[in-house]
Amino acid sequence: MLSFVGLGLYDERSITLEGRDAIRSADRAFAERYTSTLAGATIDDLEAHHGVAIALRDRAGVERDPEPILDAAETGHAAFLVGGDPMVSTTHVDLRLRAHERGIETRVVHGTTARTVAGSLTGLQNYRFGKATTLPFPRSGRRASGPGGEGSDDPADAGPDDAVDDGPVGTRHDPGTVPVPDSVLGAIGENRERGLHTLVYLDIDAERERYMDASAAAGRLAAPLDDPLGVVVARAGSPKPVVAAGRLSTLADRAFGGPLHLLVVPGELHHLEATALRELAGGPAELL
Amino acid sequence: MLSFVGLGLYDERSITLEGRDAIRSADRAFAERYTSTLAGATIDDLEAHHGVAIALRDRAGVERDPEPILDAAETGHAAFLVGGDPMVSTTHVDLRLRAHERGIETRVVHGTTARTVAGSLTGLQNYRFGKATTLPFPRSGRRASGPGGEGSDDPADAGPDDAVDDGPVGTRHDPGTVPVPDSVLGAIGENRERGLHTLVYLDIDAERERYMDASAAAGRLAAPLDDPLGVVVARAGSPKPVVAAGRLSTLADRAFGGPLHLLVVPGELHHLEATALRELAGGPAELL
Repeated sequence: MLSFVGLGLYDERSITLEGRDAIRSADRAFAERYTSTLAGATIDDLEAHHGVAIALRDRAGVERDPEPILDAAETGHAAFLVGGDPMVSTTHVDLRLRAHERGIETRVVHGTTARTVAGSLTGLQNYRFGKATTLPFPRSGRRASGPGGEGSDDPADAGPDDAVDDGPVGTRHDPGTVPVPDSVLGAIGENRERGLHTLVYLDIDAERERYMDASAAAGRLAAPLDDPLGVVVARAGSPKPVVAAGRLSTLADRAFGGPLHLLVVPGELHHLEATALRELAGGPAELL
Repeated sequence: MLSFVGLGLYDERSITLEGRDAIRSADRAFAERYTSTLAGATIDDLEAHHGVAIALRDRAGVERDPEPILDAAETGHAAFLVGGDPMVSTTHVDLRLRAHERGIETRVVHGTTARTVAGSLTGLQNYRFGKATTLPFPRSGRRASGPGGEGSDDPADAGPDDAVDDGPVGTRHDPGTVPVPDSVLGAIGENRERGLHTLVYLDIDAERERYMDASAAAGRLAAPLDDPLGVVVARAGSPKPVVAAGRLSTLADRAFGGPLHLLVVPGELHHLEATALRELAGGPAELL
């Protein structure tokens, strides 16, 4: 059997009881950190917490060489651990289909996700979110990933607007100099036309352990969007997440601490949403 | 302190380790089952599992008389337990704001949600979902709720199309006779125009412990939508969830067992999405 186990949002305690039991009952445990990652726990922390050995796989080790995982699942119970929910990224749907082809039973143990938190921590209403999008690091050729794995299949990843070398580390914090893919602006624009909120996943560069921070994202988006209200969520799922509302240009000048971050660009606000952003996210009264 | 604790999707093991610890460290625990419910666990099960007493509150007991909860949170640590994620329903945002006004510290412990599962279990890609909607029971006057609390603020709840007495129990399974709110058809239609999938939450009637089943929902939606492909998910988060793809008219004739159910109306399908629906959800090859 192959159990896909969601690790949830932040650290070793973000997993469900069902997920913990699945890991503990597994004969072999594998993990990946390229579609998502736990900012509050290392693989060592997970191994210590669950008392199991965990084999870390990079993207090539899952997509091009899945045989060791499938072999372990064919002869026993293999658990495949992923931050957030385990099946949100299509690369894992592909792995599940390969297991299915080989007649291996599969099971999904869900995890908490950025998608849920975007409403839950901000007071923005779940059903008023439109299509989500991912703001990728500028790059040439490499596939992007998003927190929770949820943004990793966004077409923004591969668009021609995206084929820009990202230059020396550090330059990306300079607002206005880094282009934003049309697909990202299109998703936000279409949602706003309908009064809907947009969750903007921020890119993860697993190889270089680099996580886009929300101030950099806000800086890139401020000018093309005419500097609307934005809401930053940092370290969702941790004991002290930060939630901050303000104009994107203002958010771009603030520091939100360690990863992971996400950004929401609200559409129309209902009264209770505006109140929540003012009271719980320090949003400026003149915008709300 | 007031901890809002998500119970997750299905039973007492759907909670996170962090949530479990929050319940166990609380001086008082409260729960509601009107925005969401665990189909796989009763309040008694939760009490036995966590070794705590849980006071169940109905909607009036949370919205109109929140003082006992706030008093407990002012003098100690109160935990407020909600199926799915605890802050997705605005009624709980309101409670959080009341606590905030009284200077009571609040904390949110997230839970797994139907929103995530709609993609995760079906193979449909997360970022290709548009706005979600709730298909309410026909009724006059009463507010609707949705699984995971996620749909409970949908405008479909209150629309004039909705002011229809629902008649004797049982008649709702007759497709075509029960009107569908314009807002539901509008949400699905706008998403389809953009190629996006729609998660349709199915109503919960907490007072009568009645949960809309997906076959009834598919029957109501088949004709107005010209009988498109639909995907049913039943008992997400349980060890054996059911995922079934087919034309809505076909799904309307099937039985999917106990609650909770949800329904997805897909937009355009990418190759891997179509493959997943065929291989993992028994979707008919001619539609995929």
